[in-house]
Amino acid sequence: MSEKRLSEFLEKIRSDLDRTVNFWVTHSHDTVHGGFFNCIDEDGKIYDETKHVWLQARQVWMYARLYKEMKRFQKPEILEAAIKGAEFLQKFTRNPETYRCYFALTKEGKPVKIQRTIFSECFYLMAMSELGIVSGKQSYKKEALTMMDKIVHWVMEDDTEIGRQSLDGAPPHSSLAVPMMMLCIISQIETMDNSLSNKYSKATDWAVAEVFKHVKRDGTAVLENVGLNGSELTGSSGRLMTPGHSIEAGWFLLDLAIRKNRTELAETAIQTFMINPYNYGWDKQYGGLYYFLDVDGWSPAQLEWDLKLWWPHNEAMISFLMAYKHTKNVKYLDIFAQIFDYSYSHFVDNEQGEWYGYLDREGKVKIRSKGGVWKGCFHVPRALMMCEQMLEAMTK
Amino acid sequence: MSEKRLSEFLEKIRSDLDRTVNFWVTHSHDTVHGGFFNCIDEDGKIYDETKHVWLQARQVWMYARLYKEMKRFQKPEILEAAIKGAEFLQKFTRNPETYRCYFALTKEGKPVKIQRTIFSECFYLMAMSELGIVSGKQSYKKEALTMMDKIVHWVMEDDTEIGRQSLDGAPPHSSLAVPMMMLCIISQIETMDNSLSNKYSKATDWAVAEVFKHVKRDGTAVLENVGLNGSELTGSSGRLMTPGHSIEAGWFLLDLAIRKNRTELAETAIQTFMINPYNYGWDKQYGGLYYFLDVDGWSPAQLEWDLKLWWPHNEAMISFLMAYKHTKNVKYLDIFAQIFDYSYSHFVDNEQGEWYGYLDREGKVKIRSKGGVWKGCFHVPRALMMCEQMLEAMTK
Repeated sequence: MSEKRLSEFLEKIRSDLDRTVNFWVTHSHDTVHGGFFNCIDEDGKIYDETKHVWLQARQVWMYARLYKEMKRFQKPEILEAAIKGAEFLQKFTRNPETYRCYFALTKEGKPVKIQRTIFSECFYLMAMSELGIVSGKQSYKKEALTMMDKIVHWVMEDDTEIGRQSLDGAPPHSSLAVPMMMLCIISQIETMDNSLSNKYSKATDWAVAEVFKHVKRDGTAVLENVGLNGSELTGSSGRLMTPGHSIEAGWFLLDLAIRKNRTELAETAIQTFMINPYNYGWDKQYGGLYYFLDVDGWSPAQLEWDLKLWWPHNEAMISFLMAYKHTKNVKYLDIFAQIFDYSYSHFVDNEQGEWYGYLDREGKVKIRSKGGVWKGCFHVPRALMMCEQMLEAMTK
Repeated sequence: MSEKRLSEFLEKIRSDLDRTVNFWVTHSHDTVHGGFFNCIDEDGKIYDETKHVWLQARQVWMYARLYKEMKRFQKPEILEAAIKGAEFLQKFTRNPETYRCYFALTKEGKPVKIQRTIFSECFYLMAMSELGIVSGKQSYKKEALTMMDKIVHWVMEDDTEIGRQSLDGAPPHSSLAVPMMMLCIISQIETMDNSLSNKYSKATDWAVAEVFKHVKRDGTAVLENVGLNGSELTGSSGRLMTPGHSIEAGWFLLDLAIRKNRTELAETAIQTFMINPYNYGWDKQYGGLYYFLDVDGWSPAQLEWDLKLWWPHNEAMISFLMAYKHTKNVKYLDIFAQIFDYSYSHFVDNEQGEWYGYLDREGKVKIRSKGGVWKGCFHVPRALMMCEQMLEAMTK
């Protein structure tokens, strides 16, 4: 049945993408100081002027990608806004010597917070790289490559510069987010310059192997945190599962498998990282994907464990549509349809654009804002763009 | 009407305290390594062996206070457990030179995490001081006084040793928790040795003045974070209200006012820190106190804003009963009765002891555990003990 709905999906997603991009273009640009406001209420009002670097950089990437990929967004104002965002980032975010990036800035660009992780830096790289592609400016590409070398050094060789304190009782562990991010930025760098594919083949192999370390319990569970040797960790953090995150890793791996022609990797990506997490992550009572679960069924330590967040549903839309497009197995399209229906009856704001981000377990909107510390112009438009492209290819 | 319920309140609270203390005595003692397990499921099973220092220290304090104040808990096993907990803390928690304390330890005592705040240190002081009183051992009292001098230095003179990085866009601000904690530890030190009251009178005045800086909007709102000069801060964190925290500050201030015979302070404590936060903090639709609110009505940044947490209800029980006992105004007893009824129909586990900690907005249990990173043997038994004592005095 869901096969007959492809045109309906395409139509709704296309107009949703228009509304969503319009939301950010209309409300988020800081024409005084540059960069973007990202704490924005449902109707576009700014409720906090702090600029969060992940979201600044993601918006630059998103605008540049939309400009490159979709004819109707190939407009000078989209490219100009991306360039202005990038200039703000270069000026205020990264230390010109160490390349460490802040996590949050004031609207004028003064530093508010720095994290002892690599994620601001990764999104900075994504922004510079994609803008390098669409603007043709070598300086952006060079900036992305310099950051790439830094990140590879921190992740695979020595993380001293990240500044995490090492304590006897908390030995280093493997967090799923890090190799996922590596897959993401390597793919970005290859999109920018395919001749670099060889240079990062070792890092790609490392990242895939690291992601696979998180598959436990005879392949039935993906755990967020494991030991460096892949062993299960004790306690709540060792038992933590984040279905949306696993499903996102699923399409990172499937995309890699398709690009590199790796059949077995594609199968594992779909079964282990999409189907299994979907099966344990979907709330059979109220619908929607849980945010966090404990693999042994204890109450998770995170108070927000049973909330329905927008981004797992965005990632799941990409994943299951990609799985369907790749395999033609209608089972995956049926799951896509279920996630689509849940999302369009719960998250989507048909009037004002963008999705609500946080629903309670039953599906009621819990936080009215469209943008905040962790939500900006990224997951929704990225998913809509990719799904539109896939659906277009399939309905041609 | 609620005046006729005093004996009912007393009886239910007394048996609840018995159940609660029994829960911790039965399930939390680590007889192998010392200290207490604090991540405990509803039925007493340990789901994580990490030992969180706030809770280790609070449990030592709680046991010592119960031993001192309540005849039926004056049992050797209570005192011994407190002493063993204190030994674990002294051995593993605090740096013998700097007196900085860790935030979390492995069950064997290896450091897992340190925070750049003063709270582990404050609870360490509370534990040592109260145990000094009941054991009569000078070494505990000395340890508390040494820590007191350190904390006063960090809070009022120089916080370099706390290690917080100062960034241009995030100037220092006043957080309500700090002067509240100061009121709490000064009261503790005075309980231990009343002759020290003069020594800390300047710190007391400072703490009261700091707490009052958080009263804004013509006295109608208590804000969590304000500028050092008392100005309102911009953005979500500047608009944040935590009704339970304000109400807790209320009884800290009322207790101080009663001890020091300060009539005007008592009135402000009740109206500004109890009644107003209760009025804006009580959920008129589903009952219970909200966790976080935005003074201007935006969605708070905290996903857990509309949850009903146990501790605000514990603090509110103490506050409104203390206000009633002090003023004899039945209006406050009516509010106490409302909080009591909500708590005993939502939070309390009549079978297994202790309260559930986290309900969703509608009042359903959201996290099944009785103890976790932030919840241990403290708020529930402290509130029950204090309410039992007040009710006993009133029903004699």
